Amino acid sequence: MNVEDFLQTHPRKPSNSDVIAACVKACYGCSESCTLCADACLGEDQLERLRRCIRLNLDCAAVCAATGEIVARQTEPDRSLLRAQLEACAAACRICGEECDRHADLHQHCRLCAESCRLCAQACNDLIASL
Amino acid sequence: MNVEDFLQTHPRKPSNSDVIAACVKACYGCSESCTLCADACLGEDQLERLRRCIRLNLDCAAVCAATGEIVARQTEPDRSLLRAQLEACAAACRICGEECDRHADLHQHCRLCAESCRLCAQACNDLIASL
Amino acid sequence: MNVEDFLQTHPRKPSNSDVIAACVKACYGCSESCTLCADACLGEDQLERLRRCIRLNLDCAAVCAATGEIVARQTEPDRSLLRAQLEACAAACRICGEECDRHADLHQHCRLCAESCRLCAQACNDLIASL
Amino acid sequence: MNVEDFLQTHPRKPSNSDVIAACVKACYGCSESCTLCADACLGEDQLERLRRCIRLNLDCAAVCAATGEIVARQTEPDRSLLRAQLEACAAACRICGEECDRHADLHQHCRLCAESCRLCAQACNDLIASL
Repeated sequence: MNVEDFLQTHPRKPSNSDVIAACVKACYGCSESCTLCADACLGEDQLERLRRCIRLNLDCAAVCAATGEIVARQTEPDRSLLRAQLEACAAACRICGEECDRHADLHQHCRLCAESCRLCAQACNDLIASL
Repeated sequence: MNVEDFLQTHPRKPSNSDVIAACVKACYGCSESCTLCADACLGEDQLERLRRCIRLNLDCAAVCAATGEIVARQTEPDRSLLRAQLEACAAACRICGEECDRHADLHQHCRLCAESCRLCAQACNDLIASL
Repeated sequence: MNVEDFLQTHPRKPSNSDVIAACVKACYGCSESCTLCADACLGEDQLERLRRCIRLNLDCAAVCAATGEIVARQTEPDRSLLRAQLEACAAACRICGEECDRHADLHQHCRLCAESCRLCAQACNDLIASL
Repeated sequence: MNVEDFLQTHPRKPSNSDVIAACVKACYGCSESCTLCADACLGEDQLERLRRCIRLNLDCAAVCAATGEIVARQTEPDRSLLRAQLEACAAACRICGEECDRHADLHQHCRLCAESCRLCAQACNDLIASL
């Protein structure tokens, strides 16, 4: 599945399709990472210490899924709605990524997830800058 | 299903549970309304005129679903993440509601959906004010 | 927000709109209940005992959200797709409800959630029977 | 973002992690494809002919998103719930893919989406066979 190929076949092909495709990929990827990290945390021994990490992972997974879907759409987009959601997504990814970083030495899934969050926050900010 | 009953049984029962419950209900309700309105629009005769309405309904349904889920959670909440997502949701509801209003005379589902969007934007703004 | 009012305004108003509306309401309601129960469990003291409950709540919330959305749509429905998803939803609600029942004496949110799951499984089975 | 890397870091690393990773990737990928195809269809000229395609794309996107999330989780999985949802997902992908195939000559996004649906149905069936 290649987002750029899809955007090339869209009747309203966007001009900045590379920035859009990068953002769509980062959002869906980060939603997956956060879902996987929440679940891996839930399976760990010292579960109490990971409450906040699980909670933020679930929030970030939901925000990224909604954002990825909205960014993917090219028919009749609304710039204000898009910008507001991208800002919320960049915030969620920054906050969740910082929490995951706190557990990165103990849990490799938290390290991987922090990296997904950083990439997604960057991709959202890049798209905001190109609006 | 009653959100307030649930919040009363939560180990970290919030102090402003009435504002939170109202916002959760409005978000899930608006997500349903937008899903129903997008689908009703898709079944209408003059479909071309409803492209923007369908698109915004789908966006708003996704944003409201993510927001409702995040507002519902009381364990280890993060105020910045919550505020950013509530602002995105209020924006989505305002923009989608304005588009639905344009078709409210012709299509009763657009009139009902515009009303759900207004209520949800208000509930999000009320919760932002109480943070 | 009233599902039946919406269905009355749909250009392809279904004949069995009461059974459909009941199912849509039950699915969205159960998705909310499971989201709230997963989060309340995450805030409890003896968290290790609630791992399976949290996991099944998250699964059931996702299944119910997808099912509610699909049942809500009346434009060009596909009966096989609908039936398969309703069967998956009834299964998820039964399995999640049984797990919640195990914690119902200790945790009121589990008792409330078990009730939502039972209602939703029933509403799915009622709609399957009417197809 | 690499699903297999994540599964290797999970405290309850599954034995069949290659089949699981393939299914997670196919489900998230198909959810993206269906979201993009629904939106590209909505931007096309002869919109009336694509009603059923849009509707099934939206259904399939929702089913694949829920399934991908459930398959991704390794903590305390329930085989019956998983199997029922995988069967619903395989059905949704088959039905949506067949509709997309009908428009594959006119619309390249439908051709791409039909391919995603086929891959996802296959990945779901492969995982069902390995349960």
